[in-house]
Amino acid sequence: MERIELANQKAVETMLAGDPVLVDVVTAGDVIPALTEAKLILHAGPPISWERMCGPMQGAVAGIAVFEGWATDLDDATKKAASGEFEFQPNHHHSAVGPMTGMTTRSQPVMVVLNRTSGNHAYCCINEGLGKVMRFGGNDASVLQRLAWLKDALAPLMSAAIKHSEGINLKNIVARGLTMGDEMHQRNVACSGLLLRELAPHMAAVSTDSKLLSEALRFMGSNDQFFLNVGMATGKAIMDPVRDIAHSTVVTAMSRNGTDFGIRVSGLGDQWFTAPVEMPEGLYFPGFSEADANPDMGDSTIVETIGLGGFAMGASPAVAGFVGAGAASDAAIFTKDMSEICCAENPEWSIPGMDYLGVPTGIDIRRVVDVGVAPTINTGIAHKKPGIGQVGAGVVRAPMRCFTDALRAFAVKEGVA
Amino acid sequence: MERIELANQKAVETMLAGDPVLVDVVTAGDVIPALTEAKLILHAGPPISWERMCGPMQGAVAGIAVFEGWATDLDDATKKAASGEFEFQPNHHHSAVGPMTGMTTRSQPVMVVLNRTSGNHAYCCINEGLGKVMRFGGNDASVLQRLAWLKDALAPLMSAAIKHSEGINLKNIVARGLTMGDEMHQRNVACSGLLLRELAPHMAAVSTDSKLLSEALRFMGSNDQFFLNVGMATGKAIMDPVRDIAHSTVVTAMSRNGTDFGIRVSGLGDQWFTAPVEMPEGLYFPGFSEADANPDMGDSTIVETIGLGGFAMGASPAVAGFVGAGAASDAAIFTKDMSEICCAENPEWSIPGMDYLGVPTGIDIRRVVDVGVAPTINTGIAHKKPGIGQVGAGVVRAPMRCFTDALRAFAVKEGVA
Repeated sequence: MERIELANQKAVETMLAGDPVLVDVVTAGDVIPALTEAKLILHAGPPISWERMCGPMQGAVAGIAVFEGWATDLDDATKKAASGEFEFQPNHHHSAVGPMTGMTTRSQPVMVVLNRTSGNHAYCCINEGLGKVMRFGGNDASVLQRLAWLKDALAPLMSAAIKHSEGINLKNIVARGLTMGDEMHQRNVACSGLLLRELAPHMAAVSTDSKLLSEALRFMGSNDQFFLNVGMATGKAIMDPVRDIAHSTVVTAMSRNGTDFGIRVSGLGDQWFTAPVEMPEGLYFPGFSEADANPDMGDSTIVETIGLGGFAMGASPAVAGFVGAGAASDAAIFTKDMSEICCAENPEWSIPGMDYLGVPTGIDIRRVVDVGVAPTINTGIAHKKPGIGQVGAGVVRAPMRCFTDALRAFAVKEGVA
Repeated sequence: MERIELANQKAVETMLAGDPVLVDVVTAGDVIPALTEAKLILHAGPPISWERMCGPMQGAVAGIAVFEGWATDLDDATKKAASGEFEFQPNHHHSAVGPMTGMTTRSQPVMVVLNRTSGNHAYCCINEGLGKVMRFGGNDASVLQRLAWLKDALAPLMSAAIKHSEGINLKNIVARGLTMGDEMHQRNVACSGLLLRELAPHMAAVSTDSKLLSEALRFMGSNDQFFLNVGMATGKAIMDPVRDIAHSTVVTAMSRNGTDFGIRVSGLGDQWFTAPVEMPEGLYFPGFSEADANPDMGDSTIVETIGLGGFAMGASPAVAGFVGAGAASDAAIFTKDMSEICCAENPEWSIPGMDYLGVPTGIDIRRVVDVGVAPTINTGIAHKKPGIGQVGAGVVRAPMRCFTDALRAFAVKEGVA
């Protein structure tokens, strides 16, 4: 129907016009007021209660409650969480996103991405690196110490450096990264380096502590996934202005809390359409197997929502092996499949190895249901128990039921049911 | 014949065993004693007299003579060069390499790459960046000022930082770069970033001048070709131990002085086999055309000699367009062609998009002549007049005559002529 096509065209135009720029690192409570009005913990995915949270998310909640000084230790935090002392809401309800468990609380630093076209801001915490980390449900002293260092040491330095720059143009970094083998979900080594080389001169210019400067450059430079969280805030900043276009069937968010997968659709506003998350198929780190794995989790699927991650697999033959998605030379097949369920290609984000095909842009729930192909997601895999961390990486599909349910609701709303 | 096969096997094993590490930046005169015994100027390519030098090389000679204080200005330098006041020798005769004109003189800083396996060192100057630069024949005040900054500011900082590290493992950086779209000749953006992120923390740790540190990080971080010269020293460090293996038909150096192309072959020691250089076919910067172009020039073909550059085109679909080599998706064809003229594939330097095919390694002059395919080289193109600089980038072939002449000499030496 023409009104849907026109609405989707507007949705895609809004996406392509998005101009995300990294403009600051601030304290979450300063930009998300709700965080300071209660003991509020923002989490990845659609809304969920404590009881239904998976192991790593409960573990992360316990850890972050200790970090915030709301509990004396992990046991105390767990009891308090179970007794209802903390509030839980999705990051997505507060212009924020977070990888895996996605904990965002008042004291944590968040990076700020401004969409210069629409004027909206999006927030995401700083990537902690690999190993035992809170996003994968880690919560011991080493995890909390790192969060404290991010807050007290790295964040102020990054903030000053970003302000000393004129902001970091993220559309350009993503464009460049796609020519360098990144898909921005499970592979961010190129974008992390491109960001570092832009920020490093400003960090040096503003630093008053050469030991901290050296540590900060080492931390950022040795974390191949540093850019993931920047890319996620980029995705949120691009998609939020698309959230409420009447008659549009374009997906504005895909997200998982480790229990449910949820999507939002532009013409249906902020309603979540959820279904149980699936289990990634992938490769496990030595000593771990599928028996250890938690189902799919995190807000990081916002990068697939803007055409990256599993949608840009063709740009990243090296990631195909890492996530166990078959031969490197088959990576392009994933991108071609995703083109079938999208409205457009992004001419500014193109894939050299596919003769500069633009990444698939604007997931159309009608096409997903018609073609019968659900979005492909490249994801990290968390251990299902709290406190352990990442055990592998893989590929997972968004559950088809989210799309069929959304399409049914859309038909009702449009009066064509 | 078996003795040739065995000799080539040894040559390839020596190449693959090479372990290049960036260990220092020093003053060229301190490590190449001949530079201080006369007014000696080392240049790219096989030996050449002043009279036969092309425009940009004469321009660079004039510039570097002023830089060294051997002439009052460019005119004076040109007269002195013509009257025989300076000596000219190839970089390759002194464990060194240099891009394009390849000027190496006593006062300039050179990066030092140690081959830990064989214990030999190789030297290359620091990349000057793009625009008007000496390697492309630029020689005005801005060019000499930049050389002075490299010598007085960047080199001491890099030297201290490298020593503060345990040396930078270059085999690993190249391996990673091949998964990130670099071929290490016309595309070095990934390796430049990987090197910067390793060096930056050490630069911060040793720096006593935050303004210089910021400038240095900006200079390195904004030069996508910064790694080229490191990669060249890597190639020289890997190939020098292969220089004199009896009965081997493996090419140990390919190099051009802008007038002649020269190759050396392991079983034939240090003899050069030369032929007139060819004209690259490529793409020109706005305002320039083939009529402005100087023929092929520089020691940078040492990277093709170790299987990178045009040999690794399949790793770098984005470079195919930049050098005018056809569709991005055709890049793999160049690599496959080069496999036909090489003895082996390098299992540690592999190309994800070609399902981890190792780069073609060990150019065999017999195969080049048999198959009738000359090595493919990705190259920058200099203006043919002195003082102007780079005008484009393209692809060029090594002249077949170098290989037929070398094979004839080899047959005579082996007594099978």
